[in-house]
Amino acid sequence: MSKVPASRVHLYDTTLRDGMQGQGMSLSATEKVRVVEALDRLGVQMIEAGFPDSNPKDLELFELLASVPLEQATIAAFGMTRRRDREAAEDPGLAALVGCFAPVVTLVGKTWALHLEVVTKVSRDENLAMIADSVRFCAESGKRVVYDPEHFFDGWRDDFGYAMACLDAAVDAGAENVTLCDTNGSSLPHEIEEGAAAVVAALEGRGASVGIHTHNDAECGVANSIAAVRAGATLVQGTINGYGERTGNANLVSILPALQLKLGYDCVPPDRLRLLTGTAHLIDEICNLAPDPSQPYVGRNAFAHKGGMHAAGVEADARTFEHMDPRDVGNEREILISELAGRGSVMSRAARAGIELDEDAVRRSIQQVKEREHRGYSYEAADASFELLLRREAGTYESLFRLESFRVITEKRADGRVETEATIKLWVGDERYTRTAEGNGPVNALDRALRAAITEQHPEIAEVELTNFKVRILDEHHGTASVTRVLLDSSDGAHDWSSIGVSENVIEASWEALVDSLEYAFQPRAEGAASAEPAGAVGDA
Amino acid sequence: MSKVPASRVHLYDTTLRDGMQGQGMSLSATEKVRVVEALDRLGVQMIEAGFPDSNPKDLELFELLASVPLEQATIAAFGMTRRRDREAAEDPGLAALVGCFAPVVTLVGKTWALHLEVVTKVSRDENLAMIADSVRFCAESGKRVVYDPEHFFDGWRDDFGYAMACLDAAVDAGAENVTLCDTNGSSLPHEIEEGAAAVVAALEGRGASVGIHTHNDAECGVANSIAAVRAGATLVQGTINGYGERTGNANLVSILPALQLKLGYDCVPPDRLRLLTGTAHLIDEICNLAPDPSQPYVGRNAFAHKGGMHAAGVEADARTFEHMDPRDVGNEREILISELAGRGSVMSRAARAGIELDEDAVRRSIQQVKEREHRGYSYEAADASFELLLRREAGTYESLFRLESFRVITEKRADGRVETEATIKLWVGDERYTRTAEGNGPVNALDRALRAAITEQHPEIAEVELTNFKVRILDEHHGTASVTRVLLDSSDGAHDWSSIGVSENVIEASWEALVDSLEYAFQPRAEGAASAEPAGAVGDA
Repeated sequence: MSKVPASRVHLYDTTLRDGMQGQGMSLSATEKVRVVEALDRLGVQMIEAGFPDSNPKDLELFELLASVPLEQATIAAFGMTRRRDREAAEDPGLAALVGCFAPVVTLVGKTWALHLEVVTKVSRDENLAMIADSVRFCAESGKRVVYDPEHFFDGWRDDFGYAMACLDAAVDAGAENVTLCDTNGSSLPHEIEEGAAAVVAALEGRGASVGIHTHNDAECGVANSIAAVRAGATLVQGTINGYGERTGNANLVSILPALQLKLGYDCVPPDRLRLLTGTAHLIDEICNLAPDPSQPYVGRNAFAHKGGMHAAGVEADARTFEHMDPRDVGNEREILISELAGRGSVMSRAARAGIELDEDAVRRSIQQVKEREHRGYSYEAADASFELLLRREAGTYESLFRLESFRVITEKRADGRVETEATIKLWVGDERYTRTAEGNGPVNALDRALRAAITEQHPEIAEVELTNFKVRILDEHHGTASVTRVLLDSSDGAHDWSSIGVSENVIEASWEALVDSLEYAFQPRAEGAASAEPAGAVGDA
Repeated sequence: MSKVPASRVHLYDTTLRDGMQGQGMSLSATEKVRVVEALDRLGVQMIEAGFPDSNPKDLELFELLASVPLEQATIAAFGMTRRRDREAAEDPGLAALVGCFAPVVTLVGKTWALHLEVVTKVSRDENLAMIADSVRFCAESGKRVVYDPEHFFDGWRDDFGYAMACLDAAVDAGAENVTLCDTNGSSLPHEIEEGAAAVVAALEGRGASVGIHTHNDAECGVANSIAAVRAGATLVQGTINGYGERTGNANLVSILPALQLKLGYDCVPPDRLRLLTGTAHLIDEICNLAPDPSQPYVGRNAFAHKGGMHAAGVEADARTFEHMDPRDVGNEREILISELAGRGSVMSRAARAGIELDEDAVRRSIQQVKEREHRGYSYEAADASFELLLRREAGTYESLFRLESFRVITEKRADGRVETEATIKLWVGDERYTRTAEGNGPVNALDRALRAAITEQHPEIAEVELTNFKVRILDEHHGTASVTRVLLDSSDGAHDWSSIGVSENVIEASWEALVDSLEYAFQPRAEGAASAEPAGAVGDA
């Protein structure tokens, strides 16, 4: 495919406004500032921060943002057209918009007659006046105005003339951009392309650009955005990782590499595109979400190869089984361990960790993986435990301690108080340690007691921080005794790693993952061996 | 948009073959039969079961399937073209394919010169012979043959003439369908549309139909499938819920409603389309995966309304904020509880559960939800706990028991054995009970001890089964004491419900969710009050 000549497409991020409509999404003002800074670094041109009048949290955000130095991004404030019964100059929402520091104001308004009739009960003419007055008021107050016609594509299907009249009202009143919204996510790419092309043609020479804002209800949010750009739109609104109400908004993380790498549009500087994976995962973390391992472009599995033929092909020539170079978006190839993988995968992981395996050790490792995966282990998401398994077979494993026994007690007393205490007896070298610790839960108490015993001889173990703890019950549908799988993410500040424990008992499974985490940190390593993922670069499963 | 005249598109499911390449996917032969039966009920026309020669599990599957009565679906067996150094009649893979009961054989072969040069090292002519010989051998053995040209779209971009020669070889040798594969997932919808249209035109009148097989690497798997159908393809290969290697295969669950409801194609009987949500969730369950609440069409949030304006609009006229009727795909509207929702949502939930709330109770409930969500609760995924909260405020809550205290001890002994025991002291009415129980973990031990005490007076509580147990650590990035959130799914066979517990201590959080689950089951209900979701119809978050 020949690429079209490079032309400029602006990215407009609405993670902090529309993305926050997603289930369970909630960020403090300080966290939102971190998101803005990350988007600015990535090269996103416009960042919608919220509605400066909706609540104290958004007000605080705009106050903070006014003094945050940004490299290149412009902040947009979001609001609605004036109320039907007020002059624009007396509308408190519009006053908040023009009063805040943001250079761009994005106004949403109606375009679809059904909404005027059923939801707002405003006449068609009054709606046109509301659009024109509001845009003009903001523009005359010195703001750059983006106009978001809500439900544009539904309106276009029902009555293109009226939908276009709404856009004309906004453009004539001074909007620099109209961003066509597929608010319900009802449209498919060919419809978006047709509707956007019609608007681009109608607005030619009028001094306003066209943007696109889609949702993922038909699982076409990304394709719909691309279709609009191909039809002439030059601004794309979306959210990081596709956060948003219902099924989410259009995912900027997938739209950006498609536009820039596959279609040759100029969106962000190429060196910034390499921040994509890290940015997507960082914002997941700020939102307290686990990165989706299957996410296009940036997921841990996006360039993973499992089948034997694929893995072999990639070794020979990456183009054979990869649609792009993972490094261009800051991701990396991953060869997964699993029942389906063979010796090639085991050897490649061993080489990366600097472990030498002879023929017999490779065979035994494969056998071990198979047996343990059958029992519920999954090494795909547990690098650290997998490396320990290989070290044991290679004979280079060094044991940190030897457990004699532990006991954990949790009591909820008559007065409602809950107390947890762990006692542990173990040997480090020839020395026996008995330690008791309280904790805010059984794993925490065990962790404290264990480290109290170990760190006397190995103080470096104190650096290890447990960053995430996930529990899953396996086989719950099989009627047999269920098995608990614990995945533990750890970090020493420079690197992250994951370990796994499997047992009928959640305490025992947690213990196993905890021990693997600490033992992994303790193993001696050759300089330069890529034993763990760089911190923050790869999420968990 | 005018709909195109209804024409027939066949669905070809490869969940059991390509879907199993996804991370962590593994099903027994019996489980695969359950998947086949569910797909048959849904109306999927062709079901690819696997490669009957690859391993004992697939062999067993084909033996089982031979005697499974299907309503309408046809089973396909999947394999490769003959090896370069063998006659088709002497190729053991082809022998397995023609020897199995499946009426359809799907053969995958090369189309892209890069693969011939780098991966298989076979000449272009020899590759054409391998395709022709293999297809002819299967067709002459009485099989219907689908030919899957691997990397078709890459080959088409490199050398359309050779890619087409591969298709010609298959069609001339008797293939009834060629399914164009975008194996790397590299293509965007306009490329797929162009490539598929070229093939449809070239094969016109030749007696073979055209199919499409895409992957989701560019987050365009669904849009790419739709683009090919619009270009004339009449068969779509994909997987349920988009399972598959890397970022997954094209998601049949989203393709089907788009083709049938939005574009007017005839895929499955309309009454079967209503099985879509249930089928998608059932297959998630068989695969031991939690249904994705944000999944288009079938996700729990796909038709959820959170913002105040949206919720009000939907009440007035569902078309204003819904792109289709959720019932057409067996889903339902969900009004989420959250910080962002207001009294409308609370009242609608209360009405569904048959709880009468006065003004004061509504206000107190909203306040409670806000305060508790601030502490880490999330009622969006915990219907049962939310109903209990409303009942407490309505004054219709009935307490099942009164706790005095509990103690749980887990010990790992010197010999490696792990033992867990819980002791509980509580009152049911005026009666005090002290019970001790062992369990395979602390929650199990607590559950047993608790039920041993309660069921003497309330034997119906024994019916409640705990079906899933999920743990999440909140605020792990905030440096403060982390909080554990436990979500517990329960079932009494007829209904499923979910409860939540939040605490620093995983035992305490589990206890809270456990108590809510049992208390929920114990509450007296009016006949007909839709107090819980029908079992199996809605997954967890």
